[in-house]
Amino acid sequence: MSHVTVPGTRTGLVEPHGGALVDRTGERPDDLESLETLILTPREVSDLDMIASGALSPLEGFMRREDYARVLEDMHLGNGLPWALPVCLAVDEAPEGDRVVLADGSDMPLAVLEVEEVYEYDKEREAERSFRTTDEAHPGVARLYAQQPNYVAGRVTVFTRPEPAFPELALDPAETRRLFAERGWKRVVGFQTRNPIHRAHEYLTKGALEIVDGLLIHPLVGETKSDDVPAATRVECYRVLVDNYYPADRVVVSAFPAAMRYAGPREAIWHAICRKNYGCSHFIVGRDHAGVGDYYGTYDAQLIFDELEPHELGIETMFFEHAFWCRACGSMATPKTCPHSGDDHVFLSGTKVRELLEAGELPPAEFSRPEVAEVLIEAYR
Amino acid sequence: MSHVTVPGTRTGLVEPHGGALVDRTGERPDDLESLETLILTPREVSDLDMIASGALSPLEGFMRREDYARVLEDMHLGNGLPWALPVCLAVDEAPEGDRVVLADGSDMPLAVLEVEEVYEYDKEREAERSFRTTDEAHPGVARLYAQQPNYVAGRVTVFTRPEPAFPELALDPAETRRLFAERGWKRVVGFQTRNPIHRAHEYLTKGALEIVDGLLIHPLVGETKSDDVPAATRVECYRVLVDNYYPADRVVVSAFPAAMRYAGPREAIWHAICRKNYGCSHFIVGRDHAGVGDYYGTYDAQLIFDELEPHELGIETMFFEHAFWCRACGSMATPKTCPHSGDDHVFLSGTKVRELLEAGELPPAEFSRPEVAEVLIEAYR
Repeated sequence: MSHVTVPGTRTGLVEPHGGALVDRTGERPDDLESLETLILTPREVSDLDMIASGALSPLEGFMRREDYARVLEDMHLGNGLPWALPVCLAVDEAPEGDRVVLADGSDMPLAVLEVEEVYEYDKEREAERSFRTTDEAHPGVARLYAQQPNYVAGRVTVFTRPEPAFPELALDPAETRRLFAERGWKRVVGFQTRNPIHRAHEYLTKGALEIVDGLLIHPLVGETKSDDVPAATRVECYRVLVDNYYPADRVVVSAFPAAMRYAGPREAIWHAICRKNYGCSHFIVGRDHAGVGDYYGTYDAQLIFDELEPHELGIETMFFEHAFWCRACGSMATPKTCPHSGDDHVFLSGTKVRELLEAGELPPAEFSRPEVAEVLIEAYR
Repeated sequence: MSHVTVPGTRTGLVEPHGGALVDRTGERPDDLESLETLILTPREVSDLDMIASGALSPLEGFMRREDYARVLEDMHLGNGLPWALPVCLAVDEAPEGDRVVLADGSDMPLAVLEVEEVYEYDKEREAERSFRTTDEAHPGVARLYAQQPNYVAGRVTVFTRPEPAFPELALDPAETRRLFAERGWKRVVGFQTRNPIHRAHEYLTKGALEIVDGLLIHPLVGETKSDDVPAATRVECYRVLVDNYYPADRVVVSAFPAAMRYAGPREAIWHAICRKNYGCSHFIVGRDHAGVGDYYGTYDAQLIFDELEPHELGIETMFFEHAFWCRACGSMATPKTCPHSGDDHVFLSGTKVRELLEAGELPPAEFSRPEVAEVLIEAYR
């Protein structure tokens, strides 16, 4: 396993979850041929890689039953640390031998797992606890129900990291931490997104940045639903937005390699914990974070943080309401900061925005930066 | 002493400094005639009243030598609580008797002080530690040097509260706390000002409000320099601003009865502690907070908070840089959130603004809300 110098307390950055950044990268063993191979789904490959990089610290592998059960039960690991979602590897049956090879969909070996435990799990219960629904129309539930019936648990050692979709945006937690430390940042706010950033989210990220040292725009580029805007288009949107409207020395744009789970409230906590590992002291939670369809209430992903003790998470959450341009204020605002009626607010539904863009028309500049809209128009062409 | 129900932990509001809100109001004793009377300066009357209301909790009276010395030395009271500025009562010589009457400038008796201690103090040292200068041109130093040579220390009981300058804005800490609790606010940000609020400070206060539950606009209406905008004019400015641009259910405007000390960095800490007593969990510190002339560096009043342990103060500070309208952003911004050059920024010097207003002209709407500017034009007429 390579040794990574992890800027942490010494630099004034927030500590990783559990106190130390996990590094589960290592050498490729010589005996791979003799081991059974498990083929991982894209979501499992993404989890594996995030374990390797320490993005899921303190996890060193796929979860044992004790951790899994307690996470579902009360959102803590067996050791008492807060944790919100299962990170598990599904198998048909217990593998032979005490080590197995983990390979991606093209059968390329990525890692070895030391088998500690194989256990049955209750899909309905996991669905109910993780997703608050057992409706198979929910994309997370659908994926869960399609899984093999057992979980195999154990520490992993990753010798081949999957090729990142956007190499120029690929930064492991140790790398973002080093970057933050080099810039002298102590308080860094992380922003999760899987959409292009329009003025509403620009407003939230800048408002958050005003009271910390730096901003990590951390778009999820792992597996998403097919109707989300493709990652390549989004990445281009982030680039033109940041180039034109953010000070370069206050912002880092990097890709968050997780797959979407669409678990709403629990995924918001999980996203916050991951960003703590990347060195963020603060994390933005907006409306319907990580939601899908109508499964979660608008502010459920904010309210769930009250179920943890204050400061238990070790990362400060910043909750925001729906933002809009208000003509009477002459500024962006939310219902918290604007007293005027909806007549003064520039509001466009997602459908309306898509219609405009597909027709090659720019939405109002109060809604979307023209540079961003141009990228989207180009993509819809 | 009257009993005050203090919403605190039970309501989720921040605790008062030291854990309990002091109440040093009480009955007028029968033996006033037999006691020596000390006439207080306006600053001392203001301090006395803030001790009475609990705004200076945990102080129960004017400071003893031990507290005074340690505050100057390392910004803590004798009991270890952070504290930044002396709150002392200067006398010519030790009074006779163990109780004295404290009266205002018109000889009206306000309180009784139980004399615990009379001690000499070193004006130069106090100036150097409190104001970082011994220059008599500094208004705080000038006032200090004009004081009597001894301090008298002891617990006070206030039986007559001075008439507030703005009765409709007068709220004691117990009252702001009750108001916050009634509204269900837990996280409240306090904003100190002794100037009319233009768009720059509107931007800071609204940015802060976005991530808490409520905003306390808490203008200082106690004694200020003669060239500051008069309190009555400012109060009218706050009224029209809040009526037109803030949601009524998210903002409380109330008067902060302190006298300005112009102690810059130390006064910023002192202001934060007072606001904690009023129930604020967060406090805005902008550029040159409580500064005067060129005595303090632009960000000294932010940097000084690093001299305390994190969380020692028990109120979260929110530091802001200089805000301006940026034409390229099409929004308010600061150097932290705007990448464009000064050519794009709407900037007006204080002198320029005053010239416009005196000529009866509105500054650009990007600089000042017209409703606020109208009030100032009227006042300059």
